[in-house]
Amino acid sequence: MPGPKKIRFGGDYNPEQWPREVWDEDIRLMRDAGINLVSIGIFSWALIEPEEGVYDFTVLDDIIGLLHAAGIDVDLATPTASPPAWFYRKYPHTRAVTRDGVPLAFGSRGIVSPSSPEYRLAATAIAAKLAERYAQHPAVVLWHVHNEYGAPITESYDDASVTAFRAWLQDRYATLDTLNAAWGTNFWGQRYGSWDEIDAPRTSGTASNPAHRLDFHRFSSAALLECFKAERDTIREHAPQPITTNFMAGICPSVDLWQWADEVDIVANDHYLTAEQDDNHIQLSRAADLTRSLARGKPWILMEHSTSAVNWQPRNIAKRPGEMRRNSLAHAARGADAVLFFQVRAGQKGAEKFHSALIPQAGEASRKWRESVALGADLTALAPILGSQVHARVAIAWDWTSFWAQDLDWRPSVDLDHRERVEAFYSALWRRGVTVDFVHPADDLTGYDVVFAPSLYLIEDDAAANLRDYASGGGTLAFSYFSGIVSSNDDVPTGPYPGQLRDVLGLVIEEFLPLRAGERTTLADGSIGRVWSDDIELQGAHSVTDFADGPGTGRPAITRNGFGEGTAWYLATALDGADLDGFVTAVLDSADSTYSPISDLETVVRHGDDTDYVFQINHGALDAGAGIVGHDLLADRAVSSGDAVPGGSVRVVAVPRADG
Amino acid sequence: MPGPKKIRFGGDYNPEQWPREVWDEDIRLMRDAGINLVSIGIFSWALIEPEEGVYDFTVLDDIIGLLHAAGIDVDLATPTASPPAWFYRKYPHTRAVTRDGVPLAFGSRGIVSPSSPEYRLAATAIAAKLAERYAQHPAVVLWHVHNEYGAPITESYDDASVTAFRAWLQDRYATLDTLNAAWGTNFWGQRYGSWDEIDAPRTSGTASNPAHRLDFHRFSSAALLECFKAERDTIREHAPQPITTNFMAGICPSVDLWQWADEVDIVANDHYLTAEQDDNHIQLSRAADLTRSLARGKPWILMEHSTSAVNWQPRNIAKRPGEMRRNSLAHAARGADAVLFFQVRAGQKGAEKFHSALIPQAGEASRKWRESVALGADLTALAPILGSQVHARVAIAWDWTSFWAQDLDWRPSVDLDHRERVEAFYSALWRRGVTVDFVHPADDLTGYDVVFAPSLYLIEDDAAANLRDYASGGGTLAFSYFSGIVSSNDDVPTGPYPGQLRDVLGLVIEEFLPLRAGERTTLADGSIGRVWSDDIELQGAHSVTDFADGPGTGRPAITRNGFGEGTAWYLATALDGADLDGFVTAVLDSADSTYSPISDLETVVRHGDDTDYVFQINHGALDAGAGIVGHDLLADRAVSSGDAVPGGSVRVVAVPRADG
Amino acid sequence: MPGPKKIRFGGDYNPEQWPREVWDEDIRLMRDAGINLVSIGIFSWALIEPEEGVYDFTVLDDIIGLLHAAGIDVDLATPTASPPAWFYRKYPHTRAVTRDGVPLAFGSRGIVSPSSPEYRLAATAIAAKLAERYAQHPAVVLWHVHNEYGAPITESYDDASVTAFRAWLQDRYATLDTLNAAWGTNFWGQRYGSWDEIDAPRTSGTASNPAHRLDFHRFSSAALLECFKAERDTIREHAPQPITTNFMAGICPSVDLWQWADEVDIVANDHYLTAEQDDNHIQLSRAADLTRSLARGKPWILMEHSTSAVNWQPRNIAKRPGEMRRNSLAHAARGADAVLFFQVRAGQKGAEKFHSALIPQAGEASRKWRESVALGADLTALAPILGSQVHARVAIAWDWTSFWAQDLDWRPSVDLDHRERVEAFYSALWRRGVTVDFVHPADDLTGYDVVFAPSLYLIEDDAAANLRDYASGGGTLAFSYFSGIVSSNDDVPTGPYPGQLRDVLGLVIEEFLPLRAGERTTLADGSIGRVWSDDIELQGAHSVTDFADGPGTGRPAITRNGFGEGTAWYLATALDGADLDGFVTAVLDSADSTYSPISDLETVVRHGDDTDYVFQINHGALDAGAGIVGHDLLADRAVSSGDAVPGGSVRVVAVPRADG
Repeated sequence: MPGPKKIRFGGDYNPEQWPREVWDEDIRLMRDAGINLVSIGIFSWALIEPEEGVYDFTVLDDIIGLLHAAGIDVDLATPTASPPAWFYRKYPHTRAVTRDGVPLAFGSRGIVSPSSPEYRLAATAIAAKLAERYAQHPAVVLWHVHNEYGAPITESYDDASVTAFRAWLQDRYATLDTLNAAWGTNFWGQRYGSWDEIDAPRTSGTASNPAHRLDFHRFSSAALLECFKAERDTIREHAPQPITTNFMAGICPSVDLWQWADEVDIVANDHYLTAEQDDNHIQLSRAADLTRSLARGKPWILMEHSTSAVNWQPRNIAKRPGEMRRNSLAHAARGADAVLFFQVRAGQKGAEKFHSALIPQAGEASRKWRESVALGADLTALAPILGSQVHARVAIAWDWTSFWAQDLDWRPSVDLDHRERVEAFYSALWRRGVTVDFVHPADDLTGYDVVFAPSLYLIEDDAAANLRDYASGGGTLAFSYFSGIVSSNDDVPTGPYPGQLRDVLGLVIEEFLPLRAGERTTLADGSIGRVWSDDIELQGAHSVTDFADGPGTGRPAITRNGFGEGTAWYLATALDGADLDGFVTAVLDSADSTYSPISDLETVVRHGDDTDYVFQINHGALDAGAGIVGHDLLADRAVSSGDAVPGGSVRVVAVPRADG
Repeated sequence: MPGPKKIRFGGDYNPEQWPREVWDEDIRLMRDAGINLVSIGIFSWALIEPEEGVYDFTVLDDIIGLLHAAGIDVDLATPTASPPAWFYRKYPHTRAVTRDGVPLAFGSRGIVSPSSPEYRLAATAIAAKLAERYAQHPAVVLWHVHNEYGAPITESYDDASVTAFRAWLQDRYATLDTLNAAWGTNFWGQRYGSWDEIDAPRTSGTASNPAHRLDFHRFSSAALLECFKAERDTIREHAPQPITTNFMAGICPSVDLWQWADEVDIVANDHYLTAEQDDNHIQLSRAADLTRSLARGKPWILMEHSTSAVNWQPRNIAKRPGEMRRNSLAHAARGADAVLFFQVRAGQKGAEKFHSALIPQAGEASRKWRESVALGADLTALAPILGSQVHARVAIAWDWTSFWAQDLDWRPSVDLDHRERVEAFYSALWRRGVTVDFVHPADDLTGYDVVFAPSLYLIEDDAAANLRDYASGGGTLAFSYFSGIVSSNDDVPTGPYPGQLRDVLGLVIEEFLPLRAGERTTLADGSIGRVWSDDIELQGAHSVTDFADGPGTGRPAITRNGFGEGTAWYLATALDGADLDGFVTAVLDSADSTYSPISDLETVVRHGDDTDYVFQINHGALDAGAGIVGHDLLADRAVSSGDAVPGGSVRVVAVPRADG
Repeated sequence: MPGPKKIRFGGDYNPEQWPREVWDEDIRLMRDAGINLVSIGIFSWALIEPEEGVYDFTVLDDIIGLLHAAGIDVDLATPTASPPAWFYRKYPHTRAVTRDGVPLAFGSRGIVSPSSPEYRLAATAIAAKLAERYAQHPAVVLWHVHNEYGAPITESYDDASVTAFRAWLQDRYATLDTLNAAWGTNFWGQRYGSWDEIDAPRTSGTASNPAHRLDFHRFSSAALLECFKAERDTIREHAPQPITTNFMAGICPSVDLWQWADEVDIVANDHYLTAEQDDNHIQLSRAADLTRSLARGKPWILMEHSTSAVNWQPRNIAKRPGEMRRNSLAHAARGADAVLFFQVRAGQKGAEKFHSALIPQAGEASRKWRESVALGADLTALAPILGSQVHARVAIAWDWTSFWAQDLDWRPSVDLDHRERVEAFYSALWRRGVTVDFVHPADDLTGYDVVFAPSLYLIEDDAAANLRDYASGGGTLAFSYFSGIVSSNDDVPTGPYPGQLRDVLGLVIEEFLPLRAGERTTLADGSIGRVWSDDIELQGAHSVTDFADGPGTGRPAITRNGFGEGTAWYLATALDGADLDGFVTAVLDSADSTYSPISDLETVVRHGDDTDYVFQINHGALDAGAGIVGHDLLADRAVSSGDAVPGGSVRVVAVPRADG
């Protein structure tokens, strides 16, 4: 990104919601807090194109000018997430339609069909206008296309989507015979005889063809990506700045961000705590690690998070003193070089007025504002870390396609929950102090000590081969249950489960043995399992521990298999807490992967050219983290070995590297 | 109402559901029970206009004649709540449409769009026919327009409603600029450029504009009121009798009865117990007090209640012996001069055949019928109370508009529940023996010792000024949390919460601190709070007690502020039981408002010209209520100081007034 | 059925889901397991009629030929449960429509409107083509029309259904006056003035007319039956084999199988365990007894059950070792002469690939396959039982119409649950070792010691007379609460509840006294009741025990009435466990009906010409069942008096009959 070599600090700013006199106060406050980047224009389509083809850039010119004069850079958005009222009146068929056939109404946000030709035309037209006008403006350092693609609506069942879906299918399958074979349409007599018989998978009498639904998920993600690329390419014709869009990695599961990450110039992410979740600071770390992984290790932008409560959760719990600071610096610790917020000033009208902001309703005379100012100072002090990177020796497999497939109807148990399992494994690693990369199972896995796959129901054939190569080359894989069951089209490979993993795991599953609601199963080592068990027949692997009761009694619960130079573990039930920690530890030990258990002190290292920046974030109430020697960037003072991090506080210690 | 000076007793009567021979038995039974008023014709449109423009009054003529001959007066209804099958076949577009776009089908009730021009025309036409024919009939003493406006459907998303909504908005806002500003349409890019871009707030991608939804609520209530006024004015052209419609105050929250109460000649209400609710006799009192308040203190009609179970609740619990009597007399105690029921005779067919009635399925040989007859005798004995009034020194603020606004999407916590809070405060006052008026916050509050506002999220600017004037003039206000947050259009005033109440409360709220599901917070005085806490900064008020734990630790939980000549209290969490009683007591004490705690003996006084009528309703099992001297109207005997009210029983003691 | 005198063993087979090379393996495996009957063609419409009017029988010819060569008979299905994609593209209006107006989409199954003329034409046309071609094929021994009529969709709200519904109503009621009277349309002003005003009972403002809804249920069941009869008659023109369709008795409540049973040549049933239900082996017995009752005691076909887990329940619990054997033989014990499965080979694609099969995903090297083979041997050994019958002395009244009526809106309590009550009574009888017939209440009841009616809300007038005749002739009736309340059109007879049973029970109910959520009521004998109580006035009956607390305190809880030569019991609350066992035992004793309590050893006798076949199915873990002398058909060895049945095992003992 052009501009000063600073950690970027700021957020979404919507001056059009206030009279002109408030703008000056806003800019004064931004300067007081050290804000150096704001995102504008995200919802401004109706403002700058009040009638079709009639443009008015007055407000935008003014505010960009004022910001520039104040030394604040601009992340300029295309407003295409929210076409104006006149657009829908003129093109009512561009509205997204629900699976039940209800066209969504204007008056909220995010209701356009991504496959609408009229929308694509209008979106690229306004993107072009903006790019032409502001490409050379010295304040504009970044382009922000659209907003949160996929939220709130990913799939649309409108006519244009059906037409586009058919074209996408023709591109994917070429012939109907191929499609019929891939989808298994001989089941339930669903064979297609012509392309125009294929509809979107609308509400039917009972479960729809799963391959049909899975492909509609894929198509819907791809259709949104096409929208992004069209705008990006349009802007690129005029503008030299980097172009991005704000992902919702780790929160919104409806687009395949592995595909998207390759298309943006710099990865940007929005993250919001699940306020009532006990370990939400750990889940924040997970989202940040996932975002860094999407960025392939490069620094990234935290485009939105919240200073305190949001407005759209059941109970919008406020952040306690110090919590915003810890949250912000945890993102920075895991690779963010920009810490931005939704939003600069709290709204007074509309659906999100109870969302927190850098400038709260309570104004300057408030703890929240004082914390905003303090965070600005912290981020200024962190300038040395710019560009430094995080290195991980352990990875977790993450595949949106597999998650979509697993969430389709009629799985063996409604208690199967990939998100819960990934979170549980991530938490166990976090508690061991292990920094984690997320990987697509077809990615190059070289260099990881261990790859965990807590829930990987669908594995495409190339990914299965890749995992096999990794293990046979000396890697350590650790799967848990209901993984490797189907291939690309939700189809079970011939032979026993898990068809994609039998050889590498050295076992077959004769039958799934899901547990009843609330049922527990005890393992021979005393661990307690939930949700699942398997009827396993070993074929090379050995049993680490067996089921001691329940439907799997006497059958293996944890297995380990030597495969080539490497090792593959399998865990056939849902372990929690110390039991899961034990499994994870055993796997790490088997791979000689180092770790150092922590309780509440999150520790992450960003590696600079010749300096390590050790982030120590104390989520607990007690002092912790003594034993490091270096210089605390935040407090600007030397850290000696006896200095601990007070409860609730954060330290970033610059430690010159021996190899530096 | 014309006719005899008696407490009116009777109910809805539907002779068209039975053969002619049953009518004579019905009338005999009515006379046996002392029934003197029945409502007829409520669902008779298809009977009296079997084809469009073809009228047949035979049945109505006959039954009115028979009733009149028996000395039973008639409350004659217009049948416009239920247009006939032929109407919907001819005008299918008059049907109400759900938010998802489903037009409701014939075969139930209440499916017409109130904004349909065809419906308005048809409804006034049949009202005119009825008024022309029966205006001079000596049996007809009251007109009953329609039935339960707003139930089951208030909002309709049909085309006629959209057209009428736009006209209503043009009337309210005059210009689009005003509307756009009021609704805050710059948020999420929702600015309107022409009136015909505005739709009803149908299902959208996520939360719709709250001001849009709130105005659609207002419009929908107003559209129904227009229907009433059109029929009323039509009847008035012909008929001299009073005209009313049956409200559902306290049960159905979808119409703003403050506006309606001014339009009826006499207030009438339907009330049904929530059968499984523990304190439902207290909630009955609340509904009765609300109805009396709508009537501005004048006597009112209990148009419907039930002799025992209804049919539409999850578990339709029957009333125990004596319970119907206590219920009926509690309504009379709080101002009802007519005690009517749905229904005279229990149905044998249709959706409500399991609803209780004065004449039950079991017929004369039943406890229920014996209780009906006994109630008739009780009401006859109560004739002296006619026209007497109830006086209250304490009021609770009640505003449907605020309730609608609070119930929109995306509030800080799903546990916010205005109904639960109003009920809790009302119960606490009931347990102190305090009779309560309900007031709109913009009403004249002079004369009340205390005005409680348990939940008043939205306060319009004039109401805020009125509350301020009341306090500064010496009144005592007591608010609880999430009150005064927004103004007329769900908009947050500039500055800290609560924008409408900062000065009168002498505090600002830096941040809302809603609690987690099931979380409790302890106050320094030992009270236990639920749901909510605030981060309060005092600005003149003093803290009565602070939060001792939870997110508000150390911050005020209960505050008191001197404001002008008066006092304003604030309670920042949800207290229950004895804790809430303690708060309420402290407020009453601070205003020198008298009370005398009761357990189960409900005591209310109706003030006649020179006599006080003391209702003593014993909801408990033990004797209670000794100490009064006078004459018991029900038992027609003298009451001396040592006489108590037996458990489950009721006494109405006439006590001559010194000033009488 | 033509073919060998063997218990039939096999299942649904879908060769079109696999390449040709798999077929040979399938046939080899079928032979290994002793499979002698497979159902084919169920979902093959698109295969055999790839374009409208273009037929291709190659695959069907091939597979039938291969099966025949292997000595395996064919149950040939018409594929009419699943019209092809081209059909819906050409005739989009044939799709079923939900109550809310959503037309169901292609891509699942079961979405056609049964009243569509185009569908009826197409279905009979393809049935004719199949019958013409295969009527004389020696492999074809049975015709299988359609699949599971009524699942997943019974009621359709499309235009053709409305038209057919009106015709059905004209046939039923002849005149609108009759219909208006039957439906009670004077309630809520619903009177119809012309037939075309009558719609299907779509979503409305609140509860729809119950008689309207009940008739739409009846019509929908009849419309499906018309579809069956049209296909059956078409096949019959060409083919001599028996014709059936697979019922879902005991699982799918949407069609009135009493009417259907008369139309099939042999009764066939599909049964699936509710996997998580504790006593699901007892509920299996219930379904089997119901199926045998539909077959009027004649042997029947178990057309589908599962070897282990299904795929469509919340948690698809696998069957434990031995469980499939016990399930299969329990069906045989209760009259099945054919034990078939869905499905022969587990699918690899589509919505049901996680459904178990005779040939599992795990293939031959699996416990599941070994159990399949063993079951084949068991069934071969059972050939002697063919044609033998089960005799029951006790019956339970079962009426789909009553169940539909009870499940309509606005009953006195949402806790009313006919299914739960029938299951509870059935279980109590099962625990007494009593084999049960199910009877329609208008059936000839002669010969039963006792007829229990655990939940019979609606009793038509002829059924009421029949029950009365049965009791007055010496029979014993035992009703529980909310029975006999309404007649044919959900109409309450004049007078006290229960209008259809007052005289036979010798009591009237003054009022229903449903209990609160979770409330319990104690009886004077110490039993504990749930859900319900009544305010009963005895009129001839005597009270066996009264309510000791709760709303019915002091009123009878269990009554007994002498009626003519017989006896009628009434139970006014929901008893469970030992309390219900006590009631059932008292009733059986009062009728001198014999029983012998069992714990886990299910014992049923099939009576051959001169031999009794005693099935002993041990569902427990301990030995049980000693005391019988005969020959165990399964083990082919003599059984002496000291031989017990091991835990989990099954024995079928042939015992020559003295009268044989």
